[in-house]
Amino acid sequence: MRPIDPVQHQQRRQQIVEAALECFAEKGFHRTRTADIGRRAGMSPGHLFHYFDSKDAIFAEVVEQDRRDAAAHFAALHAREDRYGALLELADTVLALVVQRRYAALTLETAAEALRHPRLAAVFERDDALIKADLERLLGDAAQRGQIDPGLEPQALAIWLLALMEGALMRAALDPHFDLARERATLRLLLERLLRPRGGR
Amino acid sequence: MRPIDPVQHQQRRQQIVEAALECFAEKGFHRTRTADIGRRAGMSPGHLFHYFDSKDAIFAEVVEQDRRDAAAHFAALHAREDRYGALLELADTVLALVVQRRYAALTLETAAEALRHPRLAAVFERDDALIKADLERLLGDAAQRGQIDPGLEPQALAIWLLALMEGALMRAALDPHFDLARERATLRLLLERLLRPRGGR
Repeated sequence: MRPIDPVQHQQRRQQIVEAALECFAEKGFHRTRTADIGRRAGMSPGHLFHYFDSKDAIFAEVVEQDRRDAAAHFAALHAREDRYGALLELADTVLALVVQRRYAALTLETAAEALRHPRLAAVFERDDALIKADLERLLGDAAQRGQIDPGLEPQALAIWLLALMEGALMRAALDPHFDLARERATLRLLLERLLRPRGGR
Repeated sequence: MRPIDPVQHQQRRQQIVEAALECFAEKGFHRTRTADIGRRAGMSPGHLFHYFDSKDAIFAEVVEQDRRDAAAHFAALHAREDRYGALLELADTVLALVVQRRYAALTLETAAEALRHPRLAAVFERDDALIKADLERLLGDAAQRGQIDPGLEPQALAIWLLALMEGALMRAALDPHFDLARERATLRLLLERLLRPRGGR
């Protein structure tokens, strides 16, 4: 066996991930075969299998890269004193992401797929648990500072804030009148009502 | 040509719709071919094409039946004096529906598909516009009665309440810890904060 050059190995993996994202966007996740990805990446099937053993494994790497981006984003948010401002920034970032048709299509397809395939479900589950934990921490810190209503339970709230953002993905996908700028403004008003402490209490 | 018996024609269409739903649940929307549906319904492909000209047309009928159910449900809700109670009842009904894996899988798959196929997008769009109009009416009537905050704009609100319910579908699909009874209770608390007039004002 040839010794592995770690930098080149990583570059090749990235090349495969990019090729896969292009194929998923064009043909959909279902209809993309590993052979299509290999062809797009300029590799033989055998060569590709040296880096990833399946389409699901390539998708797991896509999710893992998303997760790393999310972790870096959360690290910056946890460092802000204004945790409510951090939550609004997070909402803006996620909203800008979920209205992208490529991102939305891949998320919807693979979420549907996960309902049938435990291996894919496990990929989502691990990722989801980490994002939920970060969001709970942000909400807990905001509540502690009185920036959001301390009566709100971070764990319960995190689930529904995630639902709200995933619902925005569905809305943007299904409703041709969904307007990012307008909806960002509405979302801010609704988050204000939902999260902020009430003066009257 | 033989004369068409309208009752029998309708029964056959329904038989095809039921067969299609079983196939979609088992194999997914993508992988189901009209031949699979015909076989399941005990019909030759030619016979099936007499009733529906494509898989998309069968799916359009599924959506149309959902829409008729929704319209009947909304008619009952519009007749209640307690429009806020009607909104909570609607939320419960939708929540019980979206946690069903069959329903969730078909919705996610076909929503993803709609991002690539304008014909399928049109099916969703028509249905969505009708449901949104009914929800806006319910919210407007509730605001007029002071049962929800009159400062809330029904059109803007309808979009995000739909997002919340579609997000619940994604949550239930992706999060194995999503618990219907617990989340129903949380949703009620959040809707209370979001919608109810504030005593302090």
